[in-house]
Order: sequence, then C-alpha cells, then structure tokens
Amino acid sequence: MNIYIIGIGLIGGSFALDIKATNPDVSIFGIDANPDNAIEAKKLGVIDEVADFNTISNADVVVVAIPVDASIKVLQKTLDLIDDNTLIIEVGSTKVQIVNAIEDHPKRRNLLLTHPIAGTEFSGPSAAIRHLYKGKTNIICEIEKTAFKLQERALKLFADVGMRIRYMDPVAHDKHIAYVSHLSHISSFMLGKTVIEKEKNERDIFDMAGSGFESTVRLAKSSPAMWTPIFEQNKDNVVETLEEYIANLEQFKQHLIDNNFQAIYNEMENTNHIKEILKGITINA
Amino acid sequence: MNIYIIGIGLIGGSFALDIKATNPDVSIFGIDANPDNAIEAKKLGVIDEVADFNTISNADVVVVAIPVDASIKVLQKTLDLIDDNTLIIEVGSTKVQIVNAIEDHPKRRNLLLTHPIAGTEFSGPSAAIRHLYKGKTNIICEIEKTAFKLQERALKLFADVGMRIRYMDPVAHDKHIAYVSHLSHISSFMLGKTVIEKEKNERDIFDMAGSGFESTVRLAKSSPAMWTPIFEQNKDNVVETLEEYIANLEQFKQHLIDNNFQAIYNEMENTNHIKEILKGITINA
Repeated sequence: MNIYIIGIGLIGGSFALDIKATNPDVSIFGIDANPDNAIEAKKLGVIDEVADFNTISNADVVVVAIPVDASIKVLQKTLDLIDDNTLIIEVGSTKVQIVNAIEDHPKRRNLLLTHPIAGTEFSGPSAAIRHLYKGKTNIICEIEKTAFKLQERALKLFADVGMRIRYMDPVAHDKHIAYVSHLSHISSFMLGKTVIEKEKNERDIFDMAGSGFESTVRLAKSSPAMWTPIFEQNKDNVVETLEEYIANLEQFKQHLIDNNFQAIYNEMENTNHIKEILKGITINA
Repeated sequence: MNIYIIGIGLIGGSFALDIKATNPDVSIFGIDANPDNAIEAKKLGVIDEVADFNTISNADVVVVAIPVDASIKVLQKTLDLIDDNTLIIEVGSTKVQIVNAIEDHPKRRNLLLTHPIAGTEFSGPSAAIRHLYKGKTNIICEIEKTAFKLQERALKLFADVGMRIRYMDPVAHDKHIAYVSHLSHISSFMLGKTVIEKEKNERDIFDMAGSGFESTVRLAKSSPAMWTPIFEQNKDNVVETLEEYIANLEQFKQHLIDNNFQAIYNEMENTNHIKEILKGITINA
C-alpha cells in the first residue's frame, strides 16, 4: 500500500511512524511545501521517499496534514489528481469551511474528514513521535459522505494506531472545539504575553515561575502559522468563547474588588469538579 | 533534632518526608487543625508523632505550612510559645501581610519567611511526595531579620531537600508572584468554568478535550481553602494582573472581529519566545 503524507510535521509525521510500525509492507511518501522538511523527514526515517504531486495518482491513501487555510486549496488539487480508489484523509482542527469548499467536488466520496485530538506544542518533522495517537479520540465528520470501502480502509488505519472514534457533524465540531481547544490556546498565549510584557526587564523573575505557570502557558509555544488560520476559519465560535471567558474573568475581578471572598471561594469550588472531567481525559490519554 | 510541622499537607508533608530521608536522626512531629489529617499523616509515615502546641517549646524547627490567613494567627501564637533557639520557617504564597503582622514581635528573629516554588494541584497528607523540592527555587524574604545561627540551620535543611535559594523583598515577591503564579490559577479556574458552563449538558464533549486543555485547566483542581486567602492578601496585585490579562484578551478578540489576522499571527509569534523562558524552568524543575 502506498501512503502519501502531505505535510510531514507533528501530525502527519507521527501518523506515518505508527502506520509504518504496524504495517511494515506500506511505503510512505512525503510531500512538503518546504523541501528541507521533506529531506529531514526522510533522514529521520519518518518517510520512505520524498515525493510530489506528479505521482500522487499512485496513492492508496493520502493524508493531508497542513495548516487549515492551505488545506482547502491542497484538498481540491489532490481530489482532482487522485485515482478513483484513493482515500484522502483530512486531519484539520476546523471543519465547516473545509466542508463548504469541497462539498460539490465530484470526488467528494474519496475524502474523509477527521480531527485526531492529539498533539504536542512542537512542530516540524522532528516533532513526529511514536504512539502519539494511542488511546486518543478521532472525531470523524460526515462519515456518510465517504465511500463505504474507503471508510473501512480509514478505520483500519485508525485502529492500527490505537485511536477511538467519535462521529460529529461539522457545525457541532467547530462550536465545541472552540471551547475545549481553541480557547485554551488563546488563554495560554495571552497569559504568556501578559507576563512577558510585565517582566521583560526582569528575566530573573522567571525563577519564581513553577510548574503551574509552565503548565498553563505551555500552549503558547504553539505554531502561529498553524493557529492563525484555525482562528480565522472558526472566528465566530472563537469570539463567542472569548466573550464568555472575559465575562467570567471580569466577574472574578469584581468579586475581588468588592472583597466578596465567599464568592471567590464558591467560584473555585464549583469549578473543582473539573477533576472528575479531567480524570476521563487522563484515562483516555 | 525535633521538627514540628504545622499543617501536614502537600507542602509540609513533602518537606517532612525529604528531611526525614536525609536526616534519619530527626524526629518529625505533626500538628494539624484537622485531627484526621494528623492521624492519616502518621499512618502514611509522613510524621513520626502526632503533637500539639503544648509541647512546641521542644522544637528545634517549626515549619508553618497552612493557608495564609490561618498562618498569620498561628505564627503569632507559635512565636509566643517557642524557645529562644527555635527556628520557625513560614512557607506561604504571600508575604507583605505576614510581614506586617509579625514585624514587631519580640521573637521576629526566630522566624524565616520563605516561599518554596513547588507544588502540585493536590492537597492533604496523601499529596505529600518525596523529592518535591529537588531543584526548585526557594524565595527567602527579609533574610537579614532572622538570627544568623537560625539562617544557617534553615539553609542546611533547604540544601538537604535540594532547593536553590533566591532572596527578594516582600513587596517585590507579592507583585511578581501575582504574575507568574496567582494569575495562572485564575486563568485556569475561569477557563474551566467557561467550558463547564457551556458544556454542562453535553458531557461527551469532553471526549474532544485533549492534553492541551488538560494542561491549561490543571490548576483549576487547586484547593479553594488555600487560594481564597492568597487572593485576599494579594488582592491589589492580583487585580492589576487581571486587568492586564483581560485587556490583552480583549485586544485579541478585537483583532479577530476586525479580520486582522496578521496581528493575530504577530501576537502569537511575539509570545512564542516563552519557549526559551520555559526551558529555564524545565531545567530547574
């Protein structure tokens, strides 16, 4: 089986590593807009061969793992070029705009829309790691619009890398993912910004920062090239989450100003049951 | 050497475990406002004996590791009761109000004000762990107001558990710690609140939450009983950090509304160098 990975970074590269490990007969071809990335990926053993779009009709599976703005264009180009029996797996963090862009393509049934909930704050071929997907959730949108035989091929690969599957419509996906992922990233970036701005002349202050700060601000290491188009494509939902988050912060601040420390206590106690919710995540991680 | 730990939770209990491991001849006595905690701590081997204030004049060292509102009262009581050669180590997350409360006490020189930058989101005797302090920073305030011989005794214990020392005045401590610790906690609690409120009827949505969400919201598991008095004592600094954080979030939201995605990109890119700053933290962790 020939698998083409377009975008050999954390997501595409980690998928390649696990597929190769569980399917040794597979040949992994890598396409990357940055030629250095493709060469590095081959050197690291993440892919078997550097390739380009000229040979993509030989692919049994194409995984498109690039920023979501580029993905809209590349998906259309790839749909145009592939064979009738090729499966394209798209793995972006937003869905509605991608659905809108490709819904009328004659090869729509060759495409499967997915969002593997997995990642780290690192990027590029060297960020690719084994077992990234083990036990993680993969959200599949509009499963019914993908050819049945190709659904099966995809589900086999997802099972091979250890993912569990959830089905969701694209509108619900984009709305909920704004809360549980996109807002976390903005919260983290702005926390990092606030502290860096304040402490820019006092680098020793970071000696005072402990693991709590590190954990909260970890996502501020994420790639702007990946995240800017996500926020652009999911703008309406993200603005709504930001408004609710800011309102909650304002209310907390007002309780402080009013010396209403019972309310401060209650706010924290009511949120403490995030423990049980996170326990669920940890079990699945 | 007799060491009394007042408040046998994560901080006091972990200190007891490491001191006992590096100084086997030490006897560890535990005092806790909650008798069940003291019994549990003895059962877990965190302390050697359950004790009370009646015998505290036998202590060579007293570690006060309780919420910062209770600490103000307990420090005064303990200073009244101890022997002239006893060292009291206070380990709270705020300093100015504690300094103000004890500065005129005749035994002020027996007290050392410290803030070990170490912890987890857990609490109680069962949260006590070995090596919590290894490689971590301990901030000491007003070192010059502690008797020299007692400074030496404290520094020996801190070295035994592997901490490195930074000196800072109480006003600077409270101002900077608001940025690198207190704001992170509020950010995390309010993020948890925002998501829980939105998704309260759709628990399956947390299947969509990945390690990024988990990391950002981890601190929302923290104890309200510990954090409410911290926010109360450091109210002015915390309100200031919240105002700056909210202003940054508002600006980010406005860039989204204005479709100014170049600005969104720049905001994230400018914050990305948190990587290098966090690298420093990780090395010390």
